[in-house]
Amino acid sequence: MAETESEASPARRGRPGYDQETVLRRAIDLFNEHGYDGASMGDLAKALGFTKSAIYHHVPSKSHLLEQALDEALDELTAMIDAAVSASGGTAYDRLRSAVRGSVEILVSHLPAVTLLLRVRGNSEVELAALRRRRELDDKLAELVTAAIAEGAIRDDIPPDLASKLLFGMVNSLIEWVRPDGHYEPGVVADAITTIAFDGLNR
Amino acid sequence: MAETESEASPARRGRPGYDQETVLRRAIDLFNEHGYDGASMGDLAKALGFTKSAIYHHVPSKSHLLEQALDEALDELTAMIDAAVSASGGTAYDRLRSAVRGSVEILVSHLPAVTLLLRVRGNSEVELAALRRRRELDDKLAELVTAAIAEGAIRDDIPPDLASKLLFGMVNSLIEWVRPDGHYEPGVVADAITTIAFDGLNR
Repeated sequence: MAETESEASPARRGRPGYDQETVLRRAIDLFNEHGYDGASMGDLAKALGFTKSAIYHHVPSKSHLLEQALDEALDELTAMIDAAVSASGGTAYDRLRSAVRGSVEILVSHLPAVTLLLRVRGNSEVELAALRRRRELDDKLAELVTAAIAEGAIRDDIPPDLASKLLFGMVNSLIEWVRPDGHYEPGVVADAITTIAFDGLNR
Repeated sequence: MAETESEASPARRGRPGYDQETVLRRAIDLFNEHGYDGASMGDLAKALGFTKSAIYHHVPSKSHLLEQALDEALDELTAMIDAAVSASGGTAYDRLRSAVRGSVEILVSHLPAVTLLLRVRGNSEVELAALRRRRELDDKLAELVTAAIAEGAIRDDIPPDLASKLLFGMVNSLIEWVRPDGHYEPGVVADAITTIAFDGLNR
């Protein structure tokens, strides 16, 4: 009974060796390589060695895969930002620095899913819903910047929303070159970002 | 005679009201909306009100349009960076700041073409050639950072290539939200970037 349930669970469906997780990872890579609109279910089937019809035994639709990928990135970012925002004890400045470091960590550890999220253009309901969730996160980060200005920790001569866009723009630009096994450790990258953003490059 | 030459020139080919420039602009927008791989010549024809076969009277191929768009962005950036690098009189630090401001200006004034360039993945020979040219520009910018460190103007506790990646990563992140007619003037954005990057957010 337990074994039957296990075999019928979503993680076990489909051809041996290709669980849902494997299919999702391959789909995310394909979407990132060719753009979501430019990658077809036929391409995914080919990449996995399925026929074009067999792929639908594994996933209901392309947009379902996109939704799972975007949810992965958004759930991770939401949990981290909510934890940073609600951290007790420290200042808003501490919480902002912690959100920057947390963003770098998630960006590296969930690189393919976050890359997909940051390239979403709003071409479908799934993409629009992801953009709405992303905007909520951006708003929370901008509020942290505003609070850090209000407590006098960071400069007030740059509009808070602009400072927030540029700060997290620098963080998000990592997707263009950072790799989990790359030349620079995530901690080194996070140090460099916080040093540049808060202390500046000037000697 | 003069008039015949004018009508046969590339800018005048095709259906009245749709010169090559209009076709290129519409193509760049489509590539940015759906990704290059996700936008077909059929989509472009539809957007311009052509039949699918008529579009080939206007442009030889989709990759030709991509090449023109990427060349536009790369030519502008190359001219600006070469001018900044070879400017006489100032320090490497001055030249670096000038390259940052120049990048912001080109990014705003050639936003669609630069957006396309920054999203190129290397899926074709045209894309690979653009990535090679982009890497040459990135190398010149990293050399400017190295020179500014060597003259003692900027801090030496961040590896030059990492500092350069993050600095211009912040600049390039503008494509996600900046608009030529947007809320913030390009000069205000350039000021905010140079202030954050060189002086830091700390009060």
